[in-house]
Order: sequence, then C-alpha cells, then structure tokens
Amino acid sequence: MRGNIVVGQSGGPTAVINSSIAGVYAAAKKVGVKKVFGMVHGIEGFLEDQLIEMEDYLEHPTGIELLKRTPSAFLGSCRFKMPKIEGHEDVYEKVFEIMEKHDIECLFYAGGNDSMDTVKMLSDYAAAHGKPQRFMGVPKTIDNDLPVTDHCPGYGSAAKYIATSLKEVIRDNESFGAKKPTFCIVEIMGRNAGWLTAAAALAKGADCNGCDAIYLPEKTFDIDAFLEKAAYLGKTKSSVVIAVSEGIKVADGRYVCELANENVAVDAFGHKQMSGTAAYLAQLVAEKTGLKTRAIELSTLQRSATHLASLTDINEAFQAGYAALIAAEEGKTGMMITLDRNCDDPYQCGTSAYDIHAIANVERKVPDEWITPDGCGLTDAYIKYARPLIMGELLPIFVDGLPLHLVRK
Amino acid sequence: MRGNIVVGQSGGPTAVINSSIAGVYAAAKKVGVKKVFGMVHGIEGFLEDQLIEMEDYLEHPTGIELLKRTPSAFLGSCRFKMPKIEGHEDVYEKVFEIMEKHDIECLFYAGGNDSMDTVKMLSDYAAAHGKPQRFMGVPKTIDNDLPVTDHCPGYGSAAKYIATSLKEVIRDNESFGAKKPTFCIVEIMGRNAGWLTAAAALAKGADCNGCDAIYLPEKTFDIDAFLEKAAYLGKTKSSVVIAVSEGIKVADGRYVCELANENVAVDAFGHKQMSGTAAYLAQLVAEKTGLKTRAIELSTLQRSATHLASLTDINEAFQAGYAALIAAEEGKTGMMITLDRNCDDPYQCGTSAYDIHAIANVERKVPDEWITPDGCGLTDAYIKYARPLIMGELLPIFVDGLPLHLVRK
Repeated sequence: MRGNIVVGQSGGPTAVINSSIAGVYAAAKKVGVKKVFGMVHGIEGFLEDQLIEMEDYLEHPTGIELLKRTPSAFLGSCRFKMPKIEGHEDVYEKVFEIMEKHDIECLFYAGGNDSMDTVKMLSDYAAAHGKPQRFMGVPKTIDNDLPVTDHCPGYGSAAKYIATSLKEVIRDNESFGAKKPTFCIVEIMGRNAGWLTAAAALAKGADCNGCDAIYLPEKTFDIDAFLEKAAYLGKTKSSVVIAVSEGIKVADGRYVCELANENVAVDAFGHKQMSGTAAYLAQLVAEKTGLKTRAIELSTLQRSATHLASLTDINEAFQAGYAALIAAEEGKTGMMITLDRNCDDPYQCGTSAYDIHAIANVERKVPDEWITPDGCGLTDAYIKYARPLIMGELLPIFVDGLPLHLVRK
Repeated sequence: MRGNIVVGQSGGPTAVINSSIAGVYAAAKKVGVKKVFGMVHGIEGFLEDQLIEMEDYLEHPTGIELLKRTPSAFLGSCRFKMPKIEGHEDVYEKVFEIMEKHDIECLFYAGGNDSMDTVKMLSDYAAAHGKPQRFMGVPKTIDNDLPVTDHCPGYGSAAKYIATSLKEVIRDNESFGAKKPTFCIVEIMGRNAGWLTAAAALAKGADCNGCDAIYLPEKTFDIDAFLEKAAYLGKTKSSVVIAVSEGIKVADGRYVCELANENVAVDAFGHKQMSGTAAYLAQLVAEKTGLKTRAIELSTLQRSATHLASLTDINEAFQAGYAALIAAEEGKTGMMITLDRNCDDPYQCGTSAYDIHAIANVERKVPDEWITPDGCGLTDAYIKYARPLIMGELLPIFVDGLPLHLVRK
C-alpha cells in the first residue's frame, strides 16, 4: 500500500481488542504504510472525521507493549448499525469521502457479528460503485460466536478470567463447610451462545471440584427441574456453585431475567440488556430450600480483566490484526481473518482470510454434542477445545500497585 | 515450646489468610515445635476434634509457596460465637480437654473482630482457671476494621483487587463515549467501615480519572442529594462510575439495601446479609435520568482474588503469623499481633503483640478527616496510608492456564 490506512473498534470491548490494533499497526509499519489512523468511537466517530494518528502513541518502543496490556477499546467503541444502502447512499458516500480526504486505502474494523456487518456493507458498496478502497474485518468478541473461525480473539481471556474467578469463588464458598452450606449462582455473559458460560467448566481440575451445574442458553431452562436439582444439591453437598448464562430462556421463549423484571431495556441493535438471572434464581432457591444463597454477576469484569488475559489470546488477537493488514496488502477486501486450528496437542493455530458474507450476522452456538446429556455440563471435547485458549499470561506493567494502561490524550 | 500447637481460621476468608498459617507453621518449625495441628473449620471443628497435621501438606518445599497462593481458608472457616462462660463451662472445658489430649500448648486463631473475641474468652477462661495453655490472635480481615493495628492482613489484597477492577470497569465504561453514556454503580463490601470502598480511590492515577464519587457507610447516605449529583454527572460526563459501600444507610438508620428488600437475612452474629444496594440505586438513577445504568457487585470475588494479591499483604500476613508464634514462645497469651507502621516513605512496617481486651469487638472506621468535605471522596491522607499496602505481586503458579491451589485431602 502506498497510502494510509485506518483502524477502528466496535461493539463490546474485550481484554485483547487492543492487541488487534497493535497487530494492524505493526504489520503496517513493516510493509511501509505511511500513516495508520485510528477512528475514535468506531465508524460513528469516523463519519464525523474523528481520527487520531497511532504513531503518536506507539512510536515509543513500550507503546505496543502497553497497548497489549490495556483493556477495553483504546480508540473508543460504538454500537452503530450502518443503515441499508438504498436511501442512505449519503452515509456511505461520507465514509468514502473521508477515506479519500486522508488518502486511506483500507479500513480495518475489529468487532463481532454486528461489526462484521459494517465491513460487509461497506465492501459491498465499494464493489457496486467501483470504489478502490478495501475493507477488512478483524474478529473480536468474548462471545466466541462468529462462524468459520475456530474461535474468536477475546474469548480466551474472558474464559481464563471466568474459570479463575469461578475457582476462587468455589474455594471461598466451600470455606464454611457442611454446617453452613451456601448456594452460590454465578451469572455469566452470553445472550444466545453459551461459550462464555461453558468456560466455567474449565475451573475443574485436580485441585477443584468445579461447578455443580452449568446452564447454557442453547438448552431450554426448566425452572422446576432446576429447583429439584438445587434442593438435592443443597441436601447432599456442603457447598454448591452453579454457573448460569444471562441468556437462559424458559420454554415459552422468555429470558429468565425477564421473569424477574418485565421492563428489560433494549439497545441500538434491539438486543435486550440482560441482568438479574442469578439474583432471581438465588431467591427461588432460598425460598425452596431455606439455604443461604448468593448471586454473583461477573458483569463487565469478565470482558475487561486484562490483568489476567490469556497470552495465547493476546498473541492471536495481535496476529489477526497483522494478518488483516497483510491480506489487504495482497489486495483482498470484504473479508474477515479467521483463526484456523491446525493441531490440538500441541496446540497450533494459523490465520486465513474468509468472505465476510459467510460471517456477518451468523451466530455460532456451542455444539449440542459438547453439552452433557443432562443439559447442565460440558463434555471433554469442549475442554479439549477451550483449554489451549486460556494458556499463558502476560504480566501487566504495575505502577503504584496497579496495572498501567495506555490512554488517548 | 516443647509440646504442640494448633492453628485455626475463622470468619470471612481473605486472599492471604493462608499466608498467616504459613507464617505460624514456619516459625513453629524454626523454634522446634513438635507438631503443628490445623483445626478444620475453626473452633467449631476443634470442639469436634477435627484436626489435621500441617506437616502432611507443608513438608514439601513447594507447600508453603502454594499455600500462600491459595485463596479462602485452607483449613476451612466457621462463624461460631463462643457462648458466655457462665453456664457454658462445659464448652470451655472441652477446648482444654482436646488441647491436653493432643499436648497442645498454644492455640493460634486468625480472624477479625468476632474471632478475636474467641481468643479473649479462651484466654480469660485459662487465666481464671489456672490453665497453662496460651491463646494468640492473628489479625485477618478484608474489612480493615480492627483497632490498634495500623492495618489488617487481607485488606491490602482486597484493596488491590478493588482498585484494579475499578480501573478496568472505568476503562470499559468509557469506551462508548458521549453518544452512549453509561452510569455504572459498583457495590463494595463493608458493613460498617468503609475501608474497602475507600480503596476505589486508589484507581485514580495518570492513566485513569478514577471514580466520580465514593460513598462510605461512615456518612449518612442522602438519596435526594445522590440523585441530584447523578443527574448532574449524567448530563456533564460521557462515562460515570460510582463506588458505594454495601453498608450505606439513610438518615432513619435503614440500610439502602433494605429499601429494596425488607426481608434481609441475618447470620449467626446477627449481622445482616447485604446485597442489592447498587442495583437499587442504579434503578433509581435510570428512572430519574433515563440513562443506561449498570450495577456491579464485587461480591466474594474481592476477598478471594488471590491471583491478584498484594505481595506486601502476603508478606505481612505471613509475618503476623510468624510473630504470633514467637510471642507465644516468649510466654505471651491473650494477645493479638499488630502491624506497626514505622515509616510511610519508604514504607516500613513491624509487628508487636497487644492485649486482646483492647481489640476484641472494637470496630475502627475510616477517620472523618480522610473523607472529603462533600462526603463522597477520599483525601490524599488516605491514599498515602493505603497505597503502600497494595504494592507488589506474587505470581500464581499456573497449571492448565489457571492458578494452582493447595487443598485438604
């Protein structure tokens, strides 16, 4: 590329989304791209010409290392849905106008399903209107629900945090023993796909009995069966820890969190704001069993805990960004980088580029055969899949006792 | 000491309570104590003669290192209140009977206010009845509310976790910028003392603007003033993160969490089970401002996150246990080890032993002069006090991608 590029971040942040822009930047510098712009608050900010130069932050040798250790979206994120092209050509023309103004040849967008739709729309528009600019997607989502790719950058770190926290919560919960059994329900993110909640299964090991049950949104949630199981566990165990997805639904299609609160808010994409599933179930269990219960929501902690990020995840996020730049350099457009697992043991993973049309707006769920027949556990096949993704650590740079972050001026 | 000793843990676990029993064990081995017993589930288990030999777990050189990295109470904890002596002499005699049976000369008890009461009662009984056995308290509480001692082992690690998590939550919360401001309320433990919530102030630094307000239980909570401030912040800021103690109370003495739920459960010590303060306030803010709100409870995560423990805290917890053994070896009884700060900069801290009667059942709160005049912030004096306590890290031993723990067989 002889001109410049721009990179942006979109959707819910992850612990490693910044590693992807670090990867784009590093590859761009290698192939001689002149300027790497960052769009502030994704395509929404780009439409207002809000750009920064990445060089201002990354020219110092510690810049990239610090960026890799910074949670959330360094550039700022957005939840902006590109309008359909027909009748909104002005919005699309605006994107190309700003790209031309800054001599931007390629736009890189790190995000999940909704963000890949933006890449698709823009590359479709370019193709239909003979525009030379290219558009590349970099996968990013703690939800791990993008298709084609073996897994998504962001998932490994969230899974490592979830499994570590579950292990610590289980240890805490069992401290009072049989005299004071506590029934603890931990709510984990994941609206439709149970990948994050499945990570609770990783807590089990030689030094931890793991969760007593794990409920994914892939299976219809039966409250009566749950309460029956809860009563049994409460009678037979001195400590009970259960993991539930925020997105579990009862047979009539309502989310469990809606049973507690009918006025669930909705975001720009029409997604309901989830919360309160664990609290609702904990109250039911307390009423049914008389046990002391506790509800824990991992909330945004699970997507922002870069202090405990997976090194494998950080490296793959970096590589996905890097590969996107190289693919664009080769002339590709309208594609997303995928992670391709070559081997489970020892774990090896490469990258390739895939047609964005097969990816945008498609959600991949936990395969049925990875859920145990009773519907509340994960099989060894899942563990084999997920364990390599949480391996390794990248120690934060601690200043004043806390991890140091890179921030926009 | 020519005989044996026993060590126990009581009350809510911390990230470093196990370092204290490691310290007792290490000192005991040094001075030639024959056997170090561990009481399973504190004095409650001891009364049932539930003992293990620490040697079984700690003889291998990695044992102590692993114990230091294990959250919660390795020996199991309890919430058992010793009855008043009059009319319950049998319970006290039982303690001495079991001590004699195992040739136990001294009992070490790591815990907070309620646990120090157990040490006081037992040493008082021994004194009144001419018993030779000794009783030593080892401070332990994330609440940091024991008097006399400069601070309490367990607080520094909880504070480090709280400040790190707040910093990550703030980073996450600000990612969507002014177009989609989110109002986030984080609920932190602390029934009567605001030490833990105060730690939210440590998040502020060159790379973080910190919390927008911090509400401690030391100050009466004024809901109208809070909502007014919330509305102002919602209008003027693109991201708002507020820290509240679970123990904040309104003017009539009710806990804020009771306003949401009148049927708050009560534990063995008559303490109310707190939860729901942030959720209640977030709902009020949403109704008042129309903003998207989010409530996060750090729950038991904040006391069990040994993966992010403060090395200073681990070392001091170890030293407190060690000093307790040395003090007992010198013939002391009915005392608790205190941490004595000698210097702020560079931070230096020693230990001494103090009469348990001045400590048991006394709660130390955050001094009024460390709370800013507006009642929702901490002064530099607090930062100067707390910063040294969160310094340093002890890297977990990671196996299969997760911190390894030491567990009882």
